[in-house]
Amino acid sequence: MLTSRSILSALALAASLVASTRSDAQTATAPRQVSATSQLPPATYRPEFGTMWTFDAPPLDYWRKTYNFAPDQKWLDHVRLASVRLPNCSASFVSARGLVMTNHHCGRECTASSSPPDSNYIATGFSAGTLANEKKCAGLYVDQLQSIQSVTDRVRGAITGRTAAEQAAQRSAIVSQIETECNQQTQLTCQVVSLYQGGIYSVYRYRRFNDVRLVMAPEEDIAFFGGDPDNFTFPRYDLDLTLLRVYENGQPYAPTDYLKWSAGGAGDNELVFVVGNPGSTGRLNTISQMEFLRDRQYPAQLAAYRRALDIYAQLAKTDTSAARRYQNDVFGVANSQKAVTGYRAGLLDTASMATKRAFERELQARIAANPALQAQYGGTWDAISRAENELATFYPQLRYYGYGGNTTLLPMAAQIVRIASESGKPDSVRLAPYRGQGIAQMTARLTQPVPIDTAYERLSLAAQFRAAQSELPASDPFLRLALNGRSPDEAAATLVRGTRVGDPAFRQSLLQGGAVAVAASTDPMIVFARGIDPLNRTVTARANALNATITANSEEIGQALFAAYGTALPPDATFTLRISDGVVKGFPMNGTIAPYKTTFYGLYERSADFDDKDPFKLPERWVTRKNNLDLSTPYDFVSTNDIIGGNSGSPVINRNGEVVGLVFDSNIEGVSNRFIFSTAVGRTVSVHSRAITEALRKMYDGGRIADELQGR
Amino acid sequence: MLTSRSILSALALAASLVASTRSDAQTATAPRQVSATSQLPPATYRPEFGTMWTFDAPPLDYWRKTYNFAPDQKWLDHVRLASVRLPNCSASFVSARGLVMTNHHCGRECTASSSPPDSNYIATGFSAGTLANEKKCAGLYVDQLQSIQSVTDRVRGAITGRTAAEQAAQRSAIVSQIETECNQQTQLTCQVVSLYQGGIYSVYRYRRFNDVRLVMAPEEDIAFFGGDPDNFTFPRYDLDLTLLRVYENGQPYAPTDYLKWSAGGAGDNELVFVVGNPGSTGRLNTISQMEFLRDRQYPAQLAAYRRALDIYAQLAKTDTSAARRYQNDVFGVANSQKAVTGYRAGLLDTASMATKRAFERELQARIAANPALQAQYGGTWDAISRAENELATFYPQLRYYGYGGNTTLLPMAAQIVRIASESGKPDSVRLAPYRGQGIAQMTARLTQPVPIDTAYERLSLAAQFRAAQSELPASDPFLRLALNGRSPDEAAATLVRGTRVGDPAFRQSLLQGGAVAVAASTDPMIVFARGIDPLNRTVTARANALNATITANSEEIGQALFAAYGTALPPDATFTLRISDGVVKGFPMNGTIAPYKTTFYGLYERSADFDDKDPFKLPERWVTRKNNLDLSTPYDFVSTNDIIGGNSGSPVINRNGEVVGLVFDSNIEGVSNRFIFSTAVGRTVSVHSRAITEALRKMYDGGRIADELQGR
Repeated sequence: MLTSRSILSALALAASLVASTRSDAQTATAPRQVSATSQLPPATYRPEFGTMWTFDAPPLDYWRKTYNFAPDQKWLDHVRLASVRLPNCSASFVSARGLVMTNHHCGRECTASSSPPDSNYIATGFSAGTLANEKKCAGLYVDQLQSIQSVTDRVRGAITGRTAAEQAAQRSAIVSQIETECNQQTQLTCQVVSLYQGGIYSVYRYRRFNDVRLVMAPEEDIAFFGGDPDNFTFPRYDLDLTLLRVYENGQPYAPTDYLKWSAGGAGDNELVFVVGNPGSTGRLNTISQMEFLRDRQYPAQLAAYRRALDIYAQLAKTDTSAARRYQNDVFGVANSQKAVTGYRAGLLDTASMATKRAFERELQARIAANPALQAQYGGTWDAISRAENELATFYPQLRYYGYGGNTTLLPMAAQIVRIASESGKPDSVRLAPYRGQGIAQMTARLTQPVPIDTAYERLSLAAQFRAAQSELPASDPFLRLALNGRSPDEAAATLVRGTRVGDPAFRQSLLQGGAVAVAASTDPMIVFARGIDPLNRTVTARANALNATITANSEEIGQALFAAYGTALPPDATFTLRISDGVVKGFPMNGTIAPYKTTFYGLYERSADFDDKDPFKLPERWVTRKNNLDLSTPYDFVSTNDIIGGNSGSPVINRNGEVVGLVFDSNIEGVSNRFIFSTAVGRTVSVHSRAITEALRKMYDGGRIADELQGR
Repeated sequence: MLTSRSILSALALAASLVASTRSDAQTATAPRQVSATSQLPPATYRPEFGTMWTFDAPPLDYWRKTYNFAPDQKWLDHVRLASVRLPNCSASFVSARGLVMTNHHCGRECTASSSPPDSNYIATGFSAGTLANEKKCAGLYVDQLQSIQSVTDRVRGAITGRTAAEQAAQRSAIVSQIETECNQQTQLTCQVVSLYQGGIYSVYRYRRFNDVRLVMAPEEDIAFFGGDPDNFTFPRYDLDLTLLRVYENGQPYAPTDYLKWSAGGAGDNELVFVVGNPGSTGRLNTISQMEFLRDRQYPAQLAAYRRALDIYAQLAKTDTSAARRYQNDVFGVANSQKAVTGYRAGLLDTASMATKRAFERELQARIAANPALQAQYGGTWDAISRAENELATFYPQLRYYGYGGNTTLLPMAAQIVRIASESGKPDSVRLAPYRGQGIAQMTARLTQPVPIDTAYERLSLAAQFRAAQSELPASDPFLRLALNGRSPDEAAATLVRGTRVGDPAFRQSLLQGGAVAVAASTDPMIVFARGIDPLNRTVTARANALNATITANSEEIGQALFAAYGTALPPDATFTLRISDGVVKGFPMNGTIAPYKTTFYGLYERSADFDDKDPFKLPERWVTRKNNLDLSTPYDFVSTNDIIGGNSGSPVINRNGEVVGLVFDSNIEGVSNRFIFSTAVGRTVSVHSRAITEALRKMYDGGRIADELQGR
């Protein structure tokens, strides 16, 4: 379920690897000293870059001008220390005794694993009546950001090599060294973060808390009410909440800083801040990168989702159990489709793209105005554009010279073929996944039994071949190998019917037989995989080289941006702590107005609208205890804050630093903010603080917890 | 309010004039006998033509195949006789004692005018406690369709002339003669209706009831809850209901046929029929006509709405009372913008247009397969396309050589100028509006005082000039007259400041002075209007000629369609009785699913969402009596039936002919069904029958009326 639901957490894991990935990246040119920006006209806030501000560069002037609000350093420090990070989400201290508030989907693993054998807290919900009943969350930790320090000069100074490989190794070494030193000196968890795509480097120091316990989690049916259909949308009726508690030495931890509870919660048009760890944005992408996504990559992804959904629909027609069996896959694909459609919508919006284009021209003009900057960065946009254009020339080949969409048999065959050839090479010249323990791990997996759904395999391969046929020239070697004069359906059926790759014993015999056995095999899937292998190697190598050029030049552009604008623009998201300003505000939707908030009335409305059918079914407690509730209590609300995957569980606070809500999603209109931020219709969706205390008191016998939150 | 709200009634009045307008239309070629369709391949149901079936050609085979339902003639006669027409809406008999159900906005005039001097039933609602309290609706009548008879041969036979003018006069004469004869013979109200754009003619005979009384109408705040923002949308929470009663000889009329009340009301996925009088559709428009609308006319209209809204916004900035003063105008423009955006959305949908294009090719192929048909109709599409293309060449001129958008001063000046010249001509050669009593009526109006909002006049003229400047070539004579080297703002300010046309005495002096006074006037607005006059005459005459060609060829295409398909396709709407099949069904919306129904929970939710602010404010009774209600009662619902303006107040019935709902709107997605019908997302929005009885009993002390509806 996590993958299908979590725009806010799915990207966070990947993003948490940003710094180390960055240090592996190839850089084609040696970094140089960036000249001062004083010669350039003053840089100001650009709304399309959003509002994910770092705590060491809060935009005090912009806040003062926009909201007549300028928090002091004490306010900023307090808010920073009250905000914490989970392995893939955000959270906050919300009581003097260490209560931590986050989303239901962020605490899901703990909620599931702490259920006793005869019970399932995911289905039933859980609320600890006493401290003693709070359940240890195995493996869960909470990181609190203690300080940020710039290490840009030290990182740059250490990179003296001339080749990309030398530079990458030097960067990796200095990053490790800084992190280790920091850890030894401070006993804190330290991470070097690269901001502005390499524009600056900072070390983030965290205090880690390892004793975290489950205090309260509602039923998943109420936390994720409306399920995948309502995911990414608003109006919304979700209590997406988990309450945890940090312990120290077996006792509730008393944090120096925690967020107090607001008496009234979020109000219409109120200034609010979201404090959390957004995972990854692409706002520094160039126009040519965005165009590639818009015109090549996303349409191809969407077509693939369409094909997958068609196949599931086809299977459901002939097999009554298939609909249930594939339900999670269907939801997963449908949600990816929603997200990518949203990303692309932003890029298709001509006004947004015009804004972006104007910015790119302005940045280029700022660079061009300074000969030193122009010499270093002037050519980067063209270099990226050329690489993207070249990539486009063989993009269909790159996509189809692969291993059959989401099938199982062909990728297994391909891996067997490749293990046979790669294992004969010295480790250092193998393809990356086949180095080190790679081959051993793959071999172990390949010899395990795996269920094979032959109907799915056949339809999916056929769909893939059909799509290839429509996009590749008739003379294409892949098509010759795949079809050999047959129709896509015939070809796929022949492959799936004829192969023994589904049999683990057969796979084992090939793996044991090595290159000789693989070369001699007449199994049709092995023959096909053998044929694709060289095609795939050629296009992949070519694409990797182009992508390295794009990455290297993207880093240059990040440096150029920082040189030209400094911290006037927030950096792209890096799953590190940011503070985003916004206001509570409805939005135009579907010909009318979406309100700024919903209430519990709407929960009962939406359930009744669908005759209480799944995923609009209410948990029993919400039916039997309905009359306890004040139905007009605010439930969920929307605001213009700037969030993305990783922000799940972020607190929403008011000017006084008090909790008014709990972020759990973005509306579908906000998904396009990934590349170009706009507050026109995109919104952050949060649980209202009043819904949390109302539900705790009236539904979950949680007066103890509500009192603690409200400081009573 | 009527204009701003009523997609379902706005078009009905115009549509009610269809037959007479049609008989005035110019036809360039003589009608010929249409050959039998038996030589053509069988024609079948085409979903894009919708489901507005006439009662003399119900699609029994299609219904049987699709729903396994084939009503007998008795069912059809019963349903037809239970359905009635109001002057601009639809309605139905729903009790043995003559209760008539229609929409609140259809009975609005009666509700308003029957309020006693110290009361306003629009605001307070009204429910007659006894028969004696029912209030006479002055001037309101209901028409009940008694029979339909084809008169195609008789109309065609009477048209023997060779010129368009002769044919139009002959058609008009025979239509009048048939209507008069019918009325004399039957004592019924008779109307000759032209279906399929002249493909066939039928006489519709109505029994008219003139004693109609108001029984019950809720508060407008609940009938039109959500106001203009929610208009054309779903989910929806409106009790858009008026109950009337037909009297005969001072006693409640006992109709031979009335619709019984369904016990359960509309259920999900249930087959339902809408029986009513759709006003006007454009599904027989050719591709070139649709393209003209899509690419020329609608974009121009939308730009004009945008300009108007910008002006209102600008006025509201400097004048705090302006926002309130212009509120109705703003809503009106915003709703037109919604509707036209919807119409255009359908034409922008490439899949819909591909369907339409395929149909046009199929129809052309059917025509081409028969030499006689080909000779008569083969050239019509090209003739229309040529005319549209020529119209496009001077379309900006046609729009700007006019009289200043929605201003007051320039149109008055223009009328004064034109009266001066037209009054000197013989009546028969004058421009049409200036014939007969035209000039006398205009003169009377022009001498009355009219409030002039100079700030609005100035901004609106300036916006018009600015738009003209951007669309017309720099050398255009209109621009020279309007601007004469000044900026649009300067030019507009000079005109409005300098003119005395706002003064009724000044207007009277010019009208009295006639051509001499007008020619001698140096008033800048008169000078400007004098300059535009010949420009306007030239482009208007040219456009009229092209439109006559389009009209004449459109009639041919209607005949061709009927020749090729007969009644397998329903004719375009003509504000006459139709029966449309559909199913109760939610739809994909904004990334999630819109349910098939709402409940009273949702009413309280939406009101609470907006903190009970207008237009989401609940009438007092709905606050104080809330606990009386079963909040889970179905309130509004959606179905795939095919409706348009004129269908307001139509009953929704089930297979048993029982009332399950009351049509009151289309969702915004359904607005595009005007040209190409689709059930993908377009929906008919109705009040659920259970909401009506629940509200009557629990809110309006209307047990008497609910019992009567439910036959208790």
